[in-house]
Amino acid sequence: MDSKVRDITLQYLDGYSVCDYCIGSLQKISKPPLDLIEEMLISAYGLDKVILTFGAREAIGLVMRGVVGHGDYVIVDQNRHYSSILAVESVGAEFIEALTTGYPEYVVGADAYKDAIEEGKKKYGKLPALILLTHVDGRWGNVTDAKAVGDVAKQHGVPFLLNSAYSAGRFGFSADKLGADFVAISGHKSFGSSGPIGALLFRSEWSEQLLHESKFYPGKYVETLGCTVRGTAAVSFLEALKILSERLGRWGQEVQRTRDFVSDMEELGCGWDGRGNEIIQSGIKQLGETPKNHDLMYFETPIFDEIAQKHRKKGYFLAEELKKRGVMGVQPGKTKGIKMSIYGLNDEEIKQVINSFKEIINAG
Amino acid sequence: MDSKVRDITLQYLDGYSVCDYCIGSLQKISKPPLDLIEEMLISAYGLDKVILTFGAREAIGLVMRGVVGHGDYVIVDQNRHYSSILAVESVGAEFIEALTTGYPEYVVGADAYKDAIEEGKKKYGKLPALILLTHVDGRWGNVTDAKAVGDVAKQHGVPFLLNSAYSAGRFGFSADKLGADFVAISGHKSFGSSGPIGALLFRSEWSEQLLHESKFYPGKYVETLGCTVRGTAAVSFLEALKILSERLGRWGQEVQRTRDFVSDMEELGCGWDGRGNEIIQSGIKQLGETPKNHDLMYFETPIFDEIAQKHRKKGYFLAEELKKRGVMGVQPGKTKGIKMSIYGLNDEEIKQVINSFKEIINAG
Repeated sequence: MDSKVRDITLQYLDGYSVCDYCIGSLQKISKPPLDLIEEMLISAYGLDKVILTFGAREAIGLVMRGVVGHGDYVIVDQNRHYSSILAVESVGAEFIEALTTGYPEYVVGADAYKDAIEEGKKKYGKLPALILLTHVDGRWGNVTDAKAVGDVAKQHGVPFLLNSAYSAGRFGFSADKLGADFVAISGHKSFGSSGPIGALLFRSEWSEQLLHESKFYPGKYVETLGCTVRGTAAVSFLEALKILSERLGRWGQEVQRTRDFVSDMEELGCGWDGRGNEIIQSGIKQLGETPKNHDLMYFETPIFDEIAQKHRKKGYFLAEELKKRGVMGVQPGKTKGIKMSIYGLNDEEIKQVINSFKEIINAG
Repeated sequence: MDSKVRDITLQYLDGYSVCDYCIGSLQKISKPPLDLIEEMLISAYGLDKVILTFGAREAIGLVMRGVVGHGDYVIVDQNRHYSSILAVESVGAEFIEALTTGYPEYVVGADAYKDAIEEGKKKYGKLPALILLTHVDGRWGNVTDAKAVGDVAKQHGVPFLLNSAYSAGRFGFSADKLGADFVAISGHKSFGSSGPIGALLFRSEWSEQLLHESKFYPGKYVETLGCTVRGTAAVSFLEALKILSERLGRWGQEVQRTRDFVSDMEELGCGWDGRGNEIIQSGIKQLGETPKNHDLMYFETPIFDEIAQKHRKKGYFLAEELKKRGVMGVQPGKTKGIKMSIYGLNDEEIKQVINSFKEIINAG
């Protein structure tokens, strides 16, 4: 979290002060200017309307409730977040998976969606009610070709929901150009905002299906029970949006650093034969698309798994050894594979991360 | 917010660290011991099961989705939060109001529920699907006789939902003894926790109607899309629960202070005839039940409204003048009536509040 965002968040930590100025909807509050959130999101990512939610999953949930009915089915990519399936189940619908290419890249493309639609038509005798694509998945950090999937959706006349929890806030794109009808966003995942906060961007033609105004409390939407997000997270998100262009501007640099980091990590996993000849042992191998186009990395790490088997702390040794060296965020107990990101770290800190892994390998 | 609660909250402000230790449900995480939240809530307030939510309104929303169907109707008290009506509308149901006694006390009792049930039976030809009582309402701060309403619900065999957003965390009660099937709780409203966080306590016989496990992700509930609350708020709530007994223990003292404060405020609104005889002008009059049984107060304040009419800042003068004197929380622009609480203030601070009002009256 950027220090400016943090400062403002702390001022509102006790929450609710913004409600003193409410005129019916948190999104319309002008003091602090929470009403700018809507404008800023639309100007950054396109489409017509915004509704704030607790996170991307709740944005996806709103779309399912509005667009997908009992007995319908949805196409989802195999890399989707588990909560996308729960959202499908929550409306009594079913789903067909658009499959990945499998190990080692796990890429999902437009062809997989075409296949899934054909499968769905055979199984259900109709088109899907919705196509959901996880723009960037949370495991491999693969950046999908959303435009190509959007084109498939358009060809079939099926509404297209893009889960941008790991893309919006990291890099720029135009939801209109990608052909999305809905974009689910996460403030705490990719904008450096305190959470829980997210948003659903959508085309205005879906308004009536998505949101119904209360008959008794004008301006309040039934589907969100009036307000979802409360003050602290909204104020934090607003601050994060103010520095969005700075984040988006350094995306190329972040991706380059990630690629360099992958090289350095994979090199750590290589062995030597004692005569100076490198033996590729694949002790550390990045999975997902190569080269990387996103900061989320997944490494298959047999080298750490081997150490874990001999280590008295077993699988927990890795997270603990890293923590001792100030490296946080690797999931305790996991050594077969690790998920990580160096987003926002400077060169010195990145070197420190690489050196920590090196020391742990040498000690093992 | 207690300083201990605040400290812990800050440590987790960036959120999500608790997810590293997740084994399928945030409520089951034992490091930090979020799994204690369930136990602590049940041991404090009774019933059998707990599901964490973003707040009381979402807890109420869960009950509506599980228990109330399209075409059903619900009895709600006239003092309910607006979001309770939105929750009714969200499932396509209707409602009948249990009316208050009106000005000046606005009390809702069991008789009002009996009348509403009779009205409902006439109008819909059936019993209500649910009875909702706002245990303490957010406007007048009236403490209702929940046991009496629970008895009415029991007599008619209708499930009973108690909205305890302003009671649980303030004072102790046994949901079982009150006859509640469901209790909606707010962590950020009454427990001094950072939000958004709440909970639904419920009798185990309702489990199957309320929550459905995903067919694809065991242990994850479809209705909550897996997890609702994320890490920071959960950690904060846990800390708040650790000091709950201290809060509950000083409730009598808080109520007494509130009563004394009401006397002091009402005295400020009294005029004198210049010969030492008091003239009751009702310049400040506490509305809602008297004497107070809760810290939330509502004052009718014609005295400030009169000043506002002459003041160049109009209705905004009051909040501004109070702010200058370090008194926060009065809604800007309002002078006809003000909502306030002195919960948690010490004698010195309370004196400061009273003196601030006094100075403003004298200056006006």
